Amino acid sequence: MSVVAPRGFVAAGGPVGIKVTGAPDLALVATEDGQPVPAAGVFTTNRAPAAPVQVSREHLASSGRRASAVVLTSGNANAATGAAGLAAARGLCEVVAGEIGCSGDQVLVCQTGLIGVPFPYDVVRPAVGPLVGRRAGGPEAGAAAAEAILTTDTVPKEVVVEAGAARVGAMAKGAAMLAPNMATMLAVLTTDAAAEPDRLGALLAAAVGPTFNSLSVDGCTSTNDTVLVLASGRAGPVPDDVLGGALTEACRSLALQMAEDAEGATKVVHVLVEGARIDEEAHRAARRVADSLLVKCSLHGGDPYWGRVVSELATAGVDFDPARVAVAYGGVTVCRDGEGVPDDGAAAAHLAGRHVELRCDLGLGSGRGVVLGTDLGPGYIEENRTTS
Amino acid sequence: MSVVAPRGFVAAGGPVGIKVTGAPDLALVATEDGQPVPAAGVFTTNRAPAAPVQVSREHLASSGRRASAVVLTSGNANAATGAAGLAAARGLCEVVAGEIGCSGDQVLVCQTGLIGVPFPYDVVRPAVGPLVGRRAGGPEAGAAAAEAILTTDTVPKEVVVEAGAARVGAMAKGAAMLAPNMATMLAVLTTDAAAEPDRLGALLAAAVGPTFNSLSVDGCTSTNDTVLVLASGRAGPVPDDVLGGALTEACRSLALQMAEDAEGATKVVHVLVEGARIDEEAHRAARRVADSLLVKCSLHGGDPYWGRVVSELATAGVDFDPARVAVAYGGVTVCRDGEGVPDDGAAAAHLAGRHVELRCDLGLGSGRGVVLGTDLGPGYIEENRTTS
Repeated sequence: MSVVAPRGFVAAGGPVGIKVTGAPDLALVATEDGQPVPAAGVFTTNRAPAAPVQVSREHLASSGRRASAVVLTSGNANAATGAAGLAAARGLCEVVAGEIGCSGDQVLVCQTGLIGVPFPYDVVRPAVGPLVGRRAGGPEAGAAAAEAILTTDTVPKEVVVEAGAARVGAMAKGAAMLAPNMATMLAVLTTDAAAEPDRLGALLAAAVGPTFNSLSVDGCTSTNDTVLVLASGRAGPVPDDVLGGALTEACRSLALQMAEDAEGATKVVHVLVEGARIDEEAHRAARRVADSLLVKCSLHGGDPYWGRVVSELATAGVDFDPARVAVAYGGVTVCRDGEGVPDDGAAAAHLAGRHVELRCDLGLGSGRGVVLGTDLGPGYIEENRTTS
Repeated sequence: MSVVAPRGFVAAGGPVGIKVTGAPDLALVATEDGQPVPAAGVFTTNRAPAAPVQVSREHLASSGRRASAVVLTSGNANAATGAAGLAAARGLCEVVAGEIGCSGDQVLVCQTGLIGVPFPYDVVRPAVGPLVGRRAGGPEAGAAAAEAILTTDTVPKEVVVEAGAARVGAMAKGAAMLAPNMATMLAVLTTDAAAEPDRLGALLAAAVGPTFNSLSVDGCTSTNDTVLVLASGRAGPVPDDVLGGALTEACRSLALQMAEDAEGATKVVHVLVEGARIDEEAHRAARRVADSLLVKCSLHGGDPYWGRVVSELATAGVDFDPARVAVAYGGVTVCRDGEGVPDDGAAAAHLAGRHVELRCDLGLGSGRGVVLGTDLGPGYIEENRTTS
């Protein structure tokens, strides 16, 4: 179901010739009647934003944050592609707009894949119209869209969350370059709740913080990160806490699905730091631990080597007292007051599982932060050593 | 030769029972006559400094920065070991002082190995005196010391540099946890140049900046980083630029030896960023690129995937204009004005070698910075996945 679960949306997905394998590489999410609805977006902080990021930002601004459709492609990031790349991203929107019957700036665009490779617009363009023409409601169309945005992902990522009388549906892709200031990824959320752009944007930003922005696979922030939401309004108004809660739950589910599908990873790790001076420092320390190559290697080996965790906490640039720190894996304390505690192998037993909880208490205050990370296995290197 | 090449120094190295393999694990560098000489140190910025770091700092302060000896052990970091760890580090200094005939605070101490494991002082202590008693001049003694400080290093790291009428000799260990604010490592330098502590400290700090502090293997800053220098004065005074130049050259050689021996690495990468607004931003951007997991994977695969380089430059937190950036591997430009340039495979040919030069021009100013890094191979994960 995913993006077509809320009333008022249709989708499509299929191949348009970007991927040499012939795999599906273009997805569409659109309103059923082609009319623009309130929309909001959160984009990468990378200072070399891809063409589609620039174009989607422009379109949200010029359309008064109303969109009829989102077009997404995979297999080429259309980043570092200069004026031709910008023209291609705009061209995709125009073609879709022509099919749907809206203006070009009422179409948003997301792209993902290799950076710096010219986007094969001439190859793609003739295939876009027919594919958009096949847009439909129902689970098959949603699944086809979710499938068409994948790159190194091994499984599609979809979720539907109830929001009172309304629903939130969403799909995402992301398996690496997942890092600070937006886990690198594309996500499109739809809802049939009614919400004007300002409110929708505020609820989306609040949902992204503790979810996509608290996910780290490799510490790299991509050129293409985008999260978009469209609200058809078909289900009428829904209270802020209900809609915001549903958006957050959808984002949380997608973030977890991305961590579970991270390149070369065998474990999903919840890094919780508490007892920091303030929440912001707890979050920074948790990210430092989650990003640490050495900690990720220990996690891969199932080794409760807490010394590395303490060392990373102590270089996170936050208030830290080595005599107060405690570390526990899955509730098994292995370090208290900065020194080791015998645990009879219980921590290693927890680490043998697929989901690991790593809890650090700085013993200084009430600041608390959680970051979702992964271990680092040889598969990550294999996946990323070459683009060919 | 290394640390005993300058006049006035003796050394020793051998096993004292820290490593279960029975490999050499204690090294000594001392003045020939046991008299204290001017000394200086640079230590880790980690907020959980190991016991030996705390003790060496104390000793330099209370002795007026004069030392007769440095004792180094490998196989146990004596970090996160509480009061017992501090007592053990002080005890090592006292035992050495008793043998040499100086005061305890005229002995400095460095330790390296696993964090959080109680230091087996009772095992080690009886073996220290006899080993110190075997201290001697000559290349065998220097080599024994350099051998005894290794952990996951595969080769000893030594260097001798002429400094006018004087010499600088040095040894180091370090193969991972090499990162910002001091490549994680131990290094001891000796010189027979005459230099009072203030001057020696200033010259050492200046030498560490562009060498050890511009080296990054994994972005982790250890609890035990220490660089020490002792100046016997036997060769008399030497001009600042000559002594400073020799200290820098010695540190640069050791940093390069560490990069060449980095865990799981197959390539040494010189990342040069120029055209930044200021030097500090160039250095920060170079470090971001050198630390990037994705860039390191590409380097491992010999793939000139410059898109990742641009993406990392654009998230380094420095002034950046995607339309002005250029990237070259080994002098072969692959990106100009933010877009790809065909190179007929010349960049990949350069990347196939062991030494890689990655040059990035931000096109904004005259800021320049260099960071020495490595690729990331599966061997790094294998080395670090478990401590057992």
